[in-house]
Amino acid sequence: VPAEASRNAGEEQRLGAWDDAFRAGLADLLHWRRDVRRFRTAPLDRALVTELLGVAALAPSVGNAQPWRFVLVDNPGRRAEIAAVFERENAEAAQGYEGERRALYCAMKLAGLREAPVHLAVFCDEETGRGAGLGRRTMPETLRYSVVCAIHTLWLAARARGVALGWVSILDPAAATAVLDVPASWSLVGYLCLGWPEEVADCPELERAGWEKRGSPDSFLLQR
Amino acid sequence: VPAEASRNAGEEQRLGAWDDAFRAGLADLLHWRRDVRRFRTAPLDRALVTELLGVAALAPSVGNAQPWRFVLVDNPGRRAEIAAVFERENAEAAQGYEGERRALYCAMKLAGLREAPVHLAVFCDEETGRGAGLGRRTMPETLRYSVVCAIHTLWLAARARGVALGWVSILDPAAATAVLDVPASWSLVGYLCLGWPEEVADCPELERAGWEKRGSPDSFLLQR
Repeated sequence: VPAEASRNAGEEQRLGAWDDAFRAGLADLLHWRRDVRRFRTAPLDRALVTELLGVAALAPSVGNAQPWRFVLVDNPGRRAEIAAVFERENAEAAQGYEGERRALYCAMKLAGLREAPVHLAVFCDEETGRGAGLGRRTMPETLRYSVVCAIHTLWLAARARGVALGWVSILDPAAATAVLDVPASWSLVGYLCLGWPEEVADCPELERAGWEKRGSPDSFLLQR
Repeated sequence: VPAEASRNAGEEQRLGAWDDAFRAGLADLLHWRRDVRRFRTAPLDRALVTELLGVAALAPSVGNAQPWRFVLVDNPGRRAEIAAVFERENAEAAQGYEGERRALYCAMKLAGLREAPVHLAVFCDEETGRGAGLGRRTMPETLRYSVVCAIHTLWLAARARGVALGWVSILDPAAATAVLDVPASWSLVGYLCLGWPEEVADCPELERAGWEKRGSPDSFLLQR
């Protein structure tokens, strides 16, 4: 069958690039990824950052809508305002816990906004014409999910270059968006810190701090 | 400074594993990933599938909540019902386009549910106690975003083994969820097909079909 033969030839060629050594490196990358809050203040080369954003734009998107919008937040005033938005919400969130849990929450460092050399806000353009609505009539949230895939792609590409990423979700999204002066149709998906990490680890910081352990993959699986 | 010295030693060791060859392989993986709708019916080994789900569980999650719930849909009746849910919504969606656009929509193959050997429904447990709510007081959607990261991790790990994935979002999520008999606190994030692909390509099927092209990464970038 010619189609089959052609598929196999093409696929063999591709799979040649992804051998056992590559797959071991990928497993290692996933094991050592981490959400980082402890950054060195040393700058990141801007060319490296734009290279990473180019890689992020290879992410899958519903209807090929590519709804990701990347905002590099360079202005020191805006960066300080975002840090204040985080600190306000973090203090509020601490009030939601009691006793030892609150003490543990307050002892953890949950963002690196004051140290990280790069602040990157990632938005979803909810009104993009790209993709012509394909694939999101009944599940419109897949547009924002596409942006999440771009963030995750960026995360892995960064880590493979030694660059750490921290995703800051302890923010009032309306307040953070107001600081950034973006089109009204853009919704905030993630506010990210990027930079060189203070340390590397193969265990999540929240697990090391005693907040939450990882479960066995089996416990997340059902058959139907 | 001892802390700095120890960081560098650890990081040097890690980065040794992710050399230029690895990064080239990763770039290649992202370029050749694809959302696949044309599967061969040949089975996937169940051990390979559970291995992939173990890798997916390495994904980042807000508060380390690990809210992903994987449902392997093996029952032929349920699989046929899901395919029917897709076909119903796909016919409805086609009515939203006119003229050439509708003809193009109808000519495209948008899911491989009848051929793919593996159906995997991925849910978010909205009421998980894991993570104790950390990081999602103001942005509760980050719980579902964590599940998206797990799906994207699965996608890359699968592709690196030659296994293709297709994300089917042309579904009424309530109807699909009802077919699968899962806890009421679980919300459907993605319904996936997995299997060996009919073909490989470095260009999205929607671009090849003339539906939507990829834009330049520069066009998605702002500075503030």
